[in-house]
Order: sequence, then structure tokens, then C-alpha cells
Amino acid sequence: RCLLPLFLGLFQGALLLFFALFITYDEPSAQAEDASLVANQVYSTFPFFQDIQVMLVVGLGLLLTFLPLYGLSALTHNFLLLNFSMQWALVLQGLIHHFHHGQVHLDLHKLLISEFAAVTVLISVGAILGRTSPCQLLAMATCEVPVYLASEWVIVNCLGVLDVGGTITIHVFSCYFGLGVSKALFWAGQKPLHPKETPTLRSDLMSLVGMLILWVFWPSFVAVLCQPGDAQHRAILNTLLAMSASAVTTVVASSLLERDGKLSPGHLQNGSLAGGVAIGAVADMAMPPVAALALGSLSALACVLGFRFFTPLLGRKLGLQDQCGIHNLHGLPGILGAVASAAAILVASKDTSGSHFSQQALCQAVGLAVAIGASLVAGLLTGAVLRLPCLARPPEQLCFDDSLYFKFQGKDESLGSGSTTEERALALKE
Amino acid sequence: RCLLPLFLGLFQGALLLFFALFITYDEPSAQAEDASLVANQVYSTFPFFQDIQVMLVVGLGLLLTFLPLYGLSALTHNFLLLNFSMQWALVLQGLIHHFHHGQVHLDLHKLLISEFAAVTVLISVGAILGRTSPCQLLAMATCEVPVYLASEWVIVNCLGVLDVGGTITIHVFSCYFGLGVSKALFWAGQKPLHPKETPTLRSDLMSLVGMLILWVFWPSFVAVLCQPGDAQHRAILNTLLAMSASAVTTVVASSLLERDGKLSPGHLQNGSLAGGVAIGAVADMAMPPVAALALGSLSALACVLGFRFFTPLLGRKLGLQDQCGIHNLHGLPGILGAVASAAAILVASKDTSGSHFSQQALCQAVGLAVAIGASLVAGLLTGAVLRLPCLARPPEQLCFDDSLYFKFQGKDESLGSGSTTEERALALKE
Amino acid sequence: RCLLPLFLGLFQGALLLFFALFITYDEPSAQAEDASLVANQVYSTFPFFQDIQVMLVVGLGLLLTFLPLYGLSALTHNFLLLNFSMQWALVLQGLIHHFHHGQVHLDLHKLLISEFAAVTVLISVGAILGRTSPCQLLAMATCEVPVYLASEWVIVNCLGVLDVGGTITIHVFSCYFGLGVSKALFWAGQKPLHPKETPTLRSDLMSLVGMLILWVFWPSFVAVLCQPGDAQHRAILNTLLAMSASAVTTVVASSLLERDGKLSPGHLQNGSLAGGVAIGAVADMAMPPVAALALGSLSALACVLGFRFFTPLLGRKLGLQDQCGIHNLHGLPGILGAVASAAAILVASKDTSGSHFSQQALCQAVGLAVAIGASLVAGLLTGAVLRLPCLARPPEQLCFDDSLYFKFQGKDESLGSGSTTEERALALKE
Repeated sequence: RCLLPLFLGLFQGALLLFFALFITYDEPSAQAEDASLVANQVYSTFPFFQDIQVMLVVGLGLLLTFLPLYGLSALTHNFLLLNFSMQWALVLQGLIHHFHHGQVHLDLHKLLISEFAAVTVLISVGAILGRTSPCQLLAMATCEVPVYLASEWVIVNCLGVLDVGGTITIHVFSCYFGLGVSKALFWAGQKPLHPKETPTLRSDLMSLVGMLILWVFWPSFVAVLCQPGDAQHRAILNTLLAMSASAVTTVVASSLLERDGKLSPGHLQNGSLAGGVAIGAVADMAMPPVAALALGSLSALACVLGFRFFTPLLGRKLGLQDQCGIHNLHGLPGILGAVASAAAILVASKDTSGSHFSQQALCQAVGLAVAIGASLVAGLLTGAVLRLPCLARPPEQLCFDDSLYFKFQGKDESLGSGSTTEERALALKE
Repeated sequence: RCLLPLFLGLFQGALLLFFALFITYDEPSAQAEDASLVANQVYSTFPFFQDIQVMLVVGLGLLLTFLPLYGLSALTHNFLLLNFSMQWALVLQGLIHHFHHGQVHLDLHKLLISEFAAVTVLISVGAILGRTSPCQLLAMATCEVPVYLASEWVIVNCLGVLDVGGTITIHVFSCYFGLGVSKALFWAGQKPLHPKETPTLRSDLMSLVGMLILWVFWPSFVAVLCQPGDAQHRAILNTLLAMSASAVTTVVASSLLERDGKLSPGHLQNGSLAGGVAIGAVADMAMPPVAALALGSLSALACVLGFRFFTPLLGRKLGLQDQCGIHNLHGLPGILGAVASAAAILVASKDTSGSHFSQQALCQAVGLAVAIGASLVAGLLTGAVLRLPCLARPPEQLCFDDSLYFKFQGKDESLGSGSTTEERALALKE
Repeated sequence: RCLLPLFLGLFQGALLLFFALFITYDEPSAQAEDASLVANQVYSTFPFFQDIQVMLVVGLGLLLTFLPLYGLSALTHNFLLLNFSMQWALVLQGLIHHFHHGQVHLDLHKLLISEFAAVTVLISVGAILGRTSPCQLLAMATCEVPVYLASEWVIVNCLGVLDVGGTITIHVFSCYFGLGVSKALFWAGQKPLHPKETPTLRSDLMSLVGMLILWVFWPSFVAVLCQPGDAQHRAILNTLLAMSASAVTTVVASSLLERDGKLSPGHLQNGSLAGGVAIGAVADMAMPPVAALALGSLSALACVLGFRFFTPLLGRKLGLQDQCGIHNLHGLPGILGAVASAAAILVASKDTSGSHFSQQALCQAVGLAVAIGASLVAGLLTGAVLRLPCLARPPEQLCFDDSLYFKFQGKDESLGSGSTTEERALALKE
């Protein structure tokens, strides 16, 4: 376990060196007009940026606290990975930029792009949450960020895929990367249910709060990179519609699938967000509002059905472990969204009869294939790396337990064993 | 309990059909100037809109989790009702607009108006929280939204009542609607205290966090529809002053009323928000800052006194059940705010000696009467509808219990009865 | 305990009187251009203001809930003190302004300045959290706000110290004020560990969520008073970089210092924010991005080392009680930031060879000395006042317990002693 501070410490040192050599700020604007332009850019980007930060740090962190004894670790690892991956993506971006243009000027937009790279890591972690050490997670982030940047460059810049909200480049990519890692890491197949893996009333409540925070701020995530004006307005509205339809459809689907018409907290925590995942690729396209509603409903349906039937199937047939069900929240809705983007382009082409439209639709499909293929291969390789003994994979009986990573004041062991009567009484009162 | 997915599923289908037929987006702006105008509108409205979403989804949801075993249900029902009511209000608004002007162009402003319609439902639910099934709540929303839209149209458009923050149209209306529903639904009178009804330290804490979130974002709720510029600036300042006075006055009043000068968590959770309810009708009027402070103090006082004396009295005399005390948070401060708006107009009239001022003050009073009358009658009728057996009212012993609506992984019953020793040990450790 | 409502009630009365006499709003703008200017000011300031409100009310409140049985009190006292101190600062500011210019026009900027005065109180409280009554806290706020306003005036206006994010004027000042109060109040020296003082898994989780909220919105706190345009953009970026470096460095330092490489929740809750404290004095200066990263790393290191070595030392040698470790989060990083600001100015002077630069660097040092000296003296005097018996200091065995300040429905004593079997079963199930 000494590897963690060593690796992170070395990385921080390298980061400082890299920044000292290559990264500067823009020269201050010489004229009043330019200064006012910068001010307007800050006012138009910063609120979106803050919304996304809340989503990732607070919303996603809380969403992962559904494991009752693993809340501190889930929140902390999510926070650490976000920061590390952002810094790592800044370095990689800076290096590439430096070789082309020399000095790199840091601005809010570059931080945003790095944040998007970090998102992929945070999503992929969902597949292996609770059974991996921080060292393994950092190794995974180290591998995933460069592959993401390369795949994003191929998909968006080379193929010209339209994907303003990251449906293909972020969600589909990170899902299959995570599944690849999980497969290679837990090769032996599905684990039996761990006693600490079952959510409690209270941990489900915290996780639900996390979902609600993500749900509220999702439109900012989709719309931040849109063209200001009509396209951004439309992207916000489409996302709101899709997520609203998702929320209602999730309740319908979950209560139809569960015994007695009860709801499953897990379905709610994921299905309500499925619409936001799917809408990303089409959010700013010219399509009627009903398409956003339909896409939201369909993706929520796919998500809930995935939890009920597909995840158990993948577990039995392929021995695939998917702790948070990222395939249901990011994989299936992401594919739906990619297909929808191709369909939207084809429908638009009928009105204007341009052959470049059908070409664009093909691009979307190729982009989807590239995202799935690249992420699966890279994920499997990364998973193999994560099997290295030096990365300190936790033993099975200590999985899903904060006491492996946190030192609690005033007691040596977790509360169950070493606590005095007084402490137990306190825990009860609490 | 099969009615819930059936009803919601049919509604989603009808919603899709309606959107396909009648709802479109605006044509994209042809000129750069128009596009920049749209961009500015988005930047000026969207942050307010997001704040309001946080209030309703996270803040109000958490505020309702004071029932210790009913947190998941409170959060989920709040979230479901918000989405359903917004969609339903969009449909109704769209229909009316369609018959007058043909095609309906969706924009952020229309979503905001629908959100306000949904707020009334979320407030009214407070009166019957915990003793009603989701089917009953959806039936209530179905009845309340059209009545709200009609009453809002009469009050604002016909009578010309000034009420920028919805004190009369939203708070007073939804309060008496909820009380009417409660009276008609629980006709037999006040229920004895249910053992699961008592908040615990932890559920009070969650609820307090919800109150704080509502408190922080309330100025956005009041100011979003104001004229940009001075009026909006004043509305924000007045709301901040009123809520600050409310917070301090609540502590004074609560510690004077309770034994030993202790505070009641329930008073804090509600009284601190009373100023925000009351200020809505006068927030953008020309009045000195001291009036906002005084109104905030007075409404917090009314709220705390209401909890201490008025709610028990209503229970004893009228057999009225008011689970969250909405009469204290929305009814009394709402009436105070309406009276204050009439008074503010009369005072302003002295300076300028115009007779139309006293007419306007009369309008405010008539608007208040219309809101109370319409909501009470409609609420009583709705409550009678909610007694229909098919709406699956929960039996008394299963009230206030999440296990009636949620299926928990890995255990068939709630933790108390069917749990193994291991699980119980886990719950303890936790 | 009757003093609390009496004092607060009298204060509210005086506040109303003062507002009635002296405070008005600006005249509404006569011309369309002015109105649009006001609107733009609202749009550019209000989102920052809201972010800061979320930080103080929700983030800081939750950060203080690490005491497992003191969560309600921590949240409530924080909320009450924020409101009281803001009102008190408004009165004092208004009085000063009135004697110079007559009538006072209230605007968002004046509220913001009052909020900053309130922040100092909220920070200082950290040193004595849990062992003080609300009366004592209000007395402390009453003393601290005028001293802060005076010291801020001397440091910024007389000495011309550059400190846009309040590193010296807010953080250093409030830290040493709080330590002074603590020393004078608990003169006898360090208390033994109280059984209710130990955080639990769950209270640490809530506190961590509070830290994450503070972390996300910190850039708004630093940048709100910057010159719009380049300076504000740079301040945001510098703060983001410093806090990101802090987060990673805290993990490194904590896992190196603790046995087995485990993390301490307390280190995380504080160290991750240290960069934000330190960057305030230099955030808008012309310096390369690497300086922000380095400062963030260094301050996190200082914070963690402070918790591990310095706080126990101060306790043993000086008998100093510092409940939340404010010296580690606000004192050490604040001093680092002040030194960094002098260094940044000296480095900049080499390029332009101006003697006024070295003079400015000296100013920063003198400002730091003034902040420490004034706050220590004033804090010691205030602490002596807080020993007055009428302020109802809680007895040692009732410290850190919500039941001293809150009345819980349906039970007379805290859950441990007087609860029935049913209630205990409920608490268990929960």
C-alpha cells in the first residue's frame, strides 16, 4: 500500500515540472473591448462549468454511496480520481498542443475538456466499485485517459461524428472500457453476493439524493459545448424533456417488473438518468420535441430491462461483473442515442435531399463501432495490468469496507469487533 | 396497485401523441443579432431555472424526509409528481394555446410556467404525506393542475393581481387545496400518533439540510419572472432580507414557546422559509427595505405560533390532518403577504394620489379570496375522488413505511422482522 | 437560557428601527440604458453570490456535522450565526456610511461585504464548536464583526494590501481570533477526549459531503470581487488549480503519515480545502499557473502536518483547544498565502525594476502582522467576556449533544435512556 503515495507524489512532481516548462496564461487583453469579451465568456461558461463540477463531485459521488459500509471510500476515490484524471488529461493535452504550437495557454475551455476526460474514468470505475484498491483505480485512470483522448480525436475530428453531449465519445466508450477492465480483472467469473454489498434504506437514500443532483444539472453537461444561441437553447430543452420522460417511464417499468408493483431503488437511481445519456448525440439537432421525449422513454425502458434481465444474463453467460450496472445506464442508452442520431440525420436528409446526409449517418455508426471496439480492447488490456500484485487488490472478505482504507479516530478496528459498550450504545443512539 | 403503471403508461403515450401533433421548436434565428438575443435570454433565465429545479427536486425532497422510515418514498413521490405535473401542465397549456394560435413553440419560459404549476401539487401533498398511495397522489395532481391554471388565469389576467413570486396564486392556493383534500379524504378526523411518525435525530438532520437548500435558492424562485433590471434586483434583495429576518425570528419564537428555551426542529424547518412565502406578492414593489424585514419577521412568527397553537386547534375542532403543517408555512404567511401587498399599494397611493391605487389594493384582496375559495372547493371535491377504493389507500399500520412501495434487495421484509443475525450486525455497525 | 430570545428579539427590533431610519434602495433607473446596466450587474454578480450562500449555509454547515450527536446544533448554530452576523455587519456598515454620506442605498454588493464579515465568525466558531452555548456564540459574533470591519479597513484601505480572496483579512484574522477566544475561554487547558466527540462512519460521510460542496464552489468565493475580465478569469483558474493540487497532495500526505497507509477522514475534510485558503491573496496576480499548483500542494501539506503534529503540540504546550483544527485549515495556509503574495510581488518587480513593488511586498507582510495581532488580542478579550456566567456555558457532560438545545417530539430524554422498546426497534431498523 506504499505505492499509492509514491505514485501520486511522483506524479505531482512531474505535473509541477510540466506546468513550469510549458503552461502559461493568455496575455491580459490590451483593449477594453477584449476585456469585456473575456468577461462575457466567463459569465457564459463558468455557471455551466460549476454545474458540471457539482454533478461529478457531489452528485456522482453520492450516487456511488449505495454500498452501506463503503460510502467514505466511494466519495473519496471518486474525488481523487476526478482530480488525478483532470491533471493527467491536462498534461497529455498540453504535450500534444506543445508539439504543434509551442507554448500552451490555459483557459476554462481546456479545463472543461480535461474534465470530460476525467468523466470517462469515473464512469468506468462503476463496473469494479468496491473490489479494487485506489492503486488499481489510479492505474486504470492512467491507461484510460490517453486512450479516451485518442478515440475522441478519431471519432470527432477524423470521422466528423456529431456528438455534442458525449453520448458516444464519453458514455459508450467508458462503459465498454469499464466492462473490459472488469472482465480481465475478475476473469474467474461472477462473484457470489458479498454480505456488505446489499444497500440499506439509508444508503439507498443517499444514493437517490446523488441521482437527483445529477438529474437536475444534466442539461448543463449536455449543453456546455453547444453553439450559444438557438442550438444551446434547443439542447437544454431536449435534455429536460428526455430526462422528464425517463423519470416517469422508469417508475412505470420498474413497478411492472417487480413483484407487487413495488419499485426498486436501483432502477430509480439509474433509469431516471438514462434519457440524459441518450440525448447527448442528438440534443442540438433539428428534430421535433417529441423525439426527445420518445428517446428518453425508450432509454429508461432499456435501462430498467437491462437491470432486470441483461445484467444477470451477462453475469451467467460471460462471467461479467458490473457492480453499478454501468452497461444499463451508459451502454444501452448510449447505443440507443447513437442510433437515434443516425436516424435523425436520415430523416432530416429526406427534406433536403442531400447525399452528404446519408454519409453523415454512416459516420455516426462507424463512430459508435470505433468507440465500442477501442474501449473494449483497451479495457481488457488495462484489466490485465490491474492484476499486477503490486497494485494491492483487496482480499474478498475486506471488499466493500471503508475500514480498509480509512483510519477512524479512537478505535482500531471497525465498529463491530473492537468497540466498547459505550461506543456501541452511541452507535445505537445515533 | 396495478393502476399506477397503467395510468402512467397511458399518460406517457398520450403525451407523445400530443407532442407529435402540436409542439415544435421555434425556427432557428436567421440573423446573427437574433441568435445573440436568444443566447442572452438563455444566460439570463437558465441559472434561475436551475436554481428552482434544485429547490424542488433536492431541497423540497429532502425537507420531506423528516419521517424516518419514509425517506425514499418522500423523495421519489416528490420527484415523480414534479415530472408528471410538469408534463400535464405542458399538455394543458399547449391545448389552450393551440386553440388560440395553432402550433405551439416550446421554450424555457413555457417550461418554467409548467414548473410553477407542479409546485402547487408538491406543496399540497404536504398535508397528506405518508398516508396516501402514489395512485392517490397522481389523481390529485391530475385534478389540481387544471384548477391551478384556471385560478391563476383568473387572478392574474382577469383581476390583474400583482403577485410576481406566487404568494397568492401558488402558496395560498396550494395550501387550501391540500387542506381541502385532507379534510375530504380523512373525514373521520384526526388520527392518533403513528409510531413511525416521530422524526429521529437523523431524519431531522436530513430535513434541515433540505430547508437550507430551499432557503439559499428562494430568491431565484421569487425573482425569475421579474422585469430584468431594477425590479429584479429589488426582488432579490427583498427576498434575502425577508428570509434572513425569518431565520432569526424563528429561533426567538421557538425558544420562547418551547420548554427550557429549547428549539423545535420542526419550527426551524418551516419558520425560516416563511419570509420567502410572504414576500412573493410585494418583492418587486417600491417599498423601503424595512418592510421586507418586518414582513419576514411577522410571517416567521405566524408560522411558529401556527405550529404551536393553530394546528392542534384545527385538529381538535375541525378534525383536520396537516402532516407537514403546510397551513403554517404556506397558508398563514401567504395571507400575510397578500395583505401586505394591498397595504404597500395603499401606502404608495398616498404619495401620488391616484384612485386606481385603491382599486388595485381591492384587487389583491379579491384575488386572495378567489384563491382560497376556489382551492378549498376544488380540494374537497378532489379529496372525495381520492377515496375511491381503486386508488389503493394504504392501511393505517403500513403508513409512513418505505417497505410498502420499495422492494429491497436481498431481503423480503423490512429489516426488523425477517433479517438474519448478520444483517442486523451490519445495520448496527452502520 | 432565557437570554437568547431576549437578546435576539431586542436586536431584531433595533435592526428594524435602524433600517426604517437609514436604509433605502436606489432610485429606479430613469433610462433604458441604465436599466440594462443594472440587469447586467445582477447577472454577473448574483450567480457568484448564490454559490457563496450554498458554501456557507449548506457546505460549511455539513462540514461541521462530524460530531455524531451534534449535527442539528452545528447546522443550526451555523445558520443562525450567519444571519445574525450579516445583519449586524449591515448595521455597522450602514452607520459608518451614514455618518459620511447620509442615506444608505442597499445593493447586492453591500450584502456581499456583510456576508464576508459573517464568514469570519463562522470560521472562528470552529475552535470552540460543541462546548459553547448559542448565547456565547452570539456574544462572540457581536464582538468579532466590528473588529473584523476595522481590521479589514486598516489592512485593505490604509495599508493597501492586495487580498482579493480574503486570505489575510478573512482566514488568518478569523483563525487567530478563534484561537484567542478558545484560549481565554478554556483557560485551564486541553480537555480530555469526550465520549461523544469521536466521529462515526456516518457523521464523517456527511462532513465529507460538506467539504465537497465547499470545494466545488470555492472559485466563486475567491473571484467574486475581482475585476471582471482577465483578472476574474485568472482568479478562477488559479483557484481551480490550487484546489486540485490540494486534493491530491492531501491523499499523499495523509497516507504517508497514518499507519498502514490508511487515510484519515479529518485530513481529507480539511486538507482538500487548504489550497483555496492560500490562493486568495494571489489569485488575480500575474503569475504562472505552476505557482498556483505549488501553493495548493504546499498548503495541503502544511494542513495535514499541522493536524498530525502541530495541533497536539499546541494542546500540550499552550493548553490550546482547537476543535475543528481551524489553525491547520485557515491559519497555516493563510500565512503561506500571505507570504506567497509578497513573493509574487517581489518576483514581478525584478522584471520591471520598480521600487514600489518591494514596498508593496512589505505591505503584505505588515498586513499579515496586523491581522494576527489584532485578532489575537481581540479574541482573548472576547473569550474573557464569554466566561460570563449569564451566557450559559454548557456543563462538560452535556457537551456535543443536540438534546441540550433541541426538543424532540414524543420523547423527553435522548434516545438512549428514556426510549421504549418500540422506539429502540425503530432506531435499529433505521
